[in-house]
Amino acid sequence: MVWVKVVFAIALCGVLFTANGLVTADQGDCELPPKLAEEIAQYQPIVDSIFQHIVSGEYAGKTWQSLLEFTDRFGPRLTGTKQLEDAIDYAVQEMIEEGLDNVHTEEAIVSHWQRGREWAVLVEPFQKNLPMLGLGKSVGTPPDGITAEVIAVESFEEFETFTADQVKGKIVVFAPAWTGYGATGRYRYESASIAAKKGAAAVLLRSMTPFSIGTPHTGTLRYDPDVHRIPAAAITVEDAMLLLRKFRRGDKMVIQLNMDAINLEPTVSRNTIGELEGHTFKNTSVVVVSGHMDSWDVGTGASDDAGGVFVSWKAITFLKAMGLRPRRTIRAIYWTAEEQYLEGASVYEREHAEDEKEEFNVFFESDSGTFEPTGLDFSGNRAAQCIFAEVAKLMTGYDDFTFTEGSVSSDIGNWVSRGFPGVSLRNRNENYFWYHHTEGDTIELEDPVALDKITALWAATAYVIADLSVDIPKNVIDYSYV
Amino acid sequence: MVWVKVVFAIALCGVLFTANGLVTADQGDCELPPKLAEEIAQYQPIVDSIFQHIVSGEYAGKTWQSLLEFTDRFGPRLTGTKQLEDAIDYAVQEMIEEGLDNVHTEEAIVSHWQRGREWAVLVEPFQKNLPMLGLGKSVGTPPDGITAEVIAVESFEEFETFTADQVKGKIVVFAPAWTGYGATGRYRYESASIAAKKGAAAVLLRSMTPFSIGTPHTGTLRYDPDVHRIPAAAITVEDAMLLLRKFRRGDKMVIQLNMDAINLEPTVSRNTIGELEGHTFKNTSVVVVSGHMDSWDVGTGASDDAGGVFVSWKAITFLKAMGLRPRRTIRAIYWTAEEQYLEGASVYEREHAEDEKEEFNVFFESDSGTFEPTGLDFSGNRAAQCIFAEVAKLMTGYDDFTFTEGSVSSDIGNWVSRGFPGVSLRNRNENYFWYHHTEGDTIELEDPVALDKITALWAATAYVIADLSVDIPKNVIDYSYV
Repeated sequence: MVWVKVVFAIALCGVLFTANGLVTADQGDCELPPKLAEEIAQYQPIVDSIFQHIVSGEYAGKTWQSLLEFTDRFGPRLTGTKQLEDAIDYAVQEMIEEGLDNVHTEEAIVSHWQRGREWAVLVEPFQKNLPMLGLGKSVGTPPDGITAEVIAVESFEEFETFTADQVKGKIVVFAPAWTGYGATGRYRYESASIAAKKGAAAVLLRSMTPFSIGTPHTGTLRYDPDVHRIPAAAITVEDAMLLLRKFRRGDKMVIQLNMDAINLEPTVSRNTIGELEGHTFKNTSVVVVSGHMDSWDVGTGASDDAGGVFVSWKAITFLKAMGLRPRRTIRAIYWTAEEQYLEGASVYEREHAEDEKEEFNVFFESDSGTFEPTGLDFSGNRAAQCIFAEVAKLMTGYDDFTFTEGSVSSDIGNWVSRGFPGVSLRNRNENYFWYHHTEGDTIELEDPVALDKITALWAATAYVIADLSVDIPKNVIDYSYV
Repeated sequence: MVWVKVVFAIALCGVLFTANGLVTADQGDCELPPKLAEEIAQYQPIVDSIFQHIVSGEYAGKTWQSLLEFTDRFGPRLTGTKQLEDAIDYAVQEMIEEGLDNVHTEEAIVSHWQRGREWAVLVEPFQKNLPMLGLGKSVGTPPDGITAEVIAVESFEEFETFTADQVKGKIVVFAPAWTGYGATGRYRYESASIAAKKGAAAVLLRSMTPFSIGTPHTGTLRYDPDVHRIPAAAITVEDAMLLLRKFRRGDKMVIQLNMDAINLEPTVSRNTIGELEGHTFKNTSVVVVSGHMDSWDVGTGASDDAGGVFVSWKAITFLKAMGLRPRRTIRAIYWTAEEQYLEGASVYEREHAEDEKEEFNVFFESDSGTFEPTGLDFSGNRAAQCIFAEVAKLMTGYDDFTFTEGSVSSDIGNWVSRGFPGVSLRNRNENYFWYHHTEGDTIELEDPVALDKITALWAATAYVIADLSVDIPKNVIDYSYV
């Protein structure tokens, strides 16, 4: 490991520091030690072979086929359900049959929320069903439901203009304009608590999406520990805007909301692990490729995130089948309970953090759709980015992939925060949030050719990184040299 | 009227008969009597003025604004509901206030179906909610629902391969590929009866749409009089395909279906009428502009068909406000119970058919969306098409409108079958069936500028036709001269 540090002390001399402090891989402003650049270039035939086998050879179409069989067989995989655990058992069994190494699961205590039957109806001034999905972790209503007058606002700022007297006992509709998942997502997390503080009876939230065909989008909320927990559900964009307009016109509206939702005692689920064991390093400097196994209980979670699971899984399956075993272990992890605040990944991190500096090298995760790939986003320090950029050159001949510094998060966010390099798939996911957490997240979103390309990109990049003579530098090491 | 006949006996001499027997207006193969062509050309300044006032002048945006207020105020307008009748009362009141002529309603006995609460769940081999909408006129299930094994087929032909023994007591899923509303629509109408003949317990139908985000599409079915009536509902494309794939793999599936749907006694609704009365002919040679007032009980029926109602309504409102009163009456009719097999239009036809030859001239209807307009489809005999083509020339300067022979149907289909010329809006409705009969049929589909253009096109075309010195020839008259 000392050797690695020296190499990068040298490498860093050639790194240009751009205005925002980041070096992007496609700016060509890195100067790697020539021997390392030469070493990386020598992987071109292997990368070509990986792409050939997966995209047009004997593995073509197999990622999609496996994903189809899986989602058809287990359906949606909500944390706490038998079908999630059945899916995990199946993955273990299949990976063993494929001859992958160290196949096992690691337990995690996870939330256990059940939706139950639910509905919402506008009963005054006219009758209209309001298609809805209760938010994850929401409490239910009393058995006879809640029938209450409506207050509708566009923002938390607008809600502040209402007094507790005005809000008490009302159903509050939050209809924030979509400005992206990060910014608008606050409303899903916080609306119930903010409304409860003023005595609201329940919350209905405009679904988090830029486009709708009367489709509600679920997702989890967060209750502040010190507030009364009130039921909260997502309604369609169309209905939220209707209710907002009517409220602003002064129309008195009454909604009946019925939700059987219940939070049961936490239960046991499992992170699922299979490896392509390294021939030199087994349990140190591991390259993790990952996606999450759980989904919401709508659609079949094909895109969120069975796709991420299968490109990670099949990447090591196909590498193994090709007889390619790198120096370092490539570990596929299928996280559980991602949709419940990354509960599976958090347990994994806690249990592996002690050895973190030695155990891990780079974390890959795909959890933003597996549409047509356009490249990879890489997060890491400047030295790491320079190596990554050089590795990326091996891949740029395929489909005009680009490789840039970008944010990675979700289940690997914890590790990135700890200074580990992270890699996320970039793909044509402009419409991802049309389907996200809806009944429309199904195999129909997945394309066999796109999945082949992603699996190839995943396999080739992970292989080269796992086989290099050097580790990808972490911040914890690297910063001491800057 | 004799004069008119003579004119067209002459006009027809110049008509070319194309291979399919149709003359399309944009082929330029008509030779109208020069005086008639000259007369039509003289309307150009009036047409320009109508477009100017509606598209960029004082009426710009008003069609959309009225449509918004209407759909926000009354919501969905299912036949048999108070909100449909309230919407009719409102239209009458508003039209009176606008000073339109002969504002009144004409009663029609109509079907009265209520959806009630409904749900479907796949309970084996895994648990999954199946978003659904019962089909109009469907009977409900027993109070405890129907829990039964599943048979899934793609077509009636495939269903024929199953014996009554195999079908008895099962829930049959029909998952026909979308090949257009006409071809695929058969399944919505006929599946329940076809499955019932073999003893099925219920039918679930793939929704009629080329695109889905987990969205079910309702619509009416037809029960054969001699079969046992079984419940029928539409499920999403995604779920239908999932069930079909699983069935074909041999997976045993069980679905629980609960529908409170009920067919009540027929009730009274009303066709709604307002006129811009002709200064020369009041009750003869009327030009009808129309759309339908009722909708399904999902979304707010903005596109199907409040849009059609409002472009028809506002066309005469704005003509009147501009002081333009044509020779013949332009009658706006907002049909009731279109979604229940054109019940309102059928009653209207029966009650007006006796005088039909004298009473009516041309029927306009907009019921295929009110997206960006691209022109008009015209249905009529060759002589009628030649006049229409000449009138259309007045409009072609706007937005590259084109005017072609096309099919018109829905509420005016009966009159077209009787030999009357018909006009339908052509518009960029490529995505119309994404939203059709769903919770997504709302004001979000409607664009103020597009609506202005349609209202202008509707007003200008109807005005010129209503003001010409000649009637548009009907087949009943015209065929005697061919």
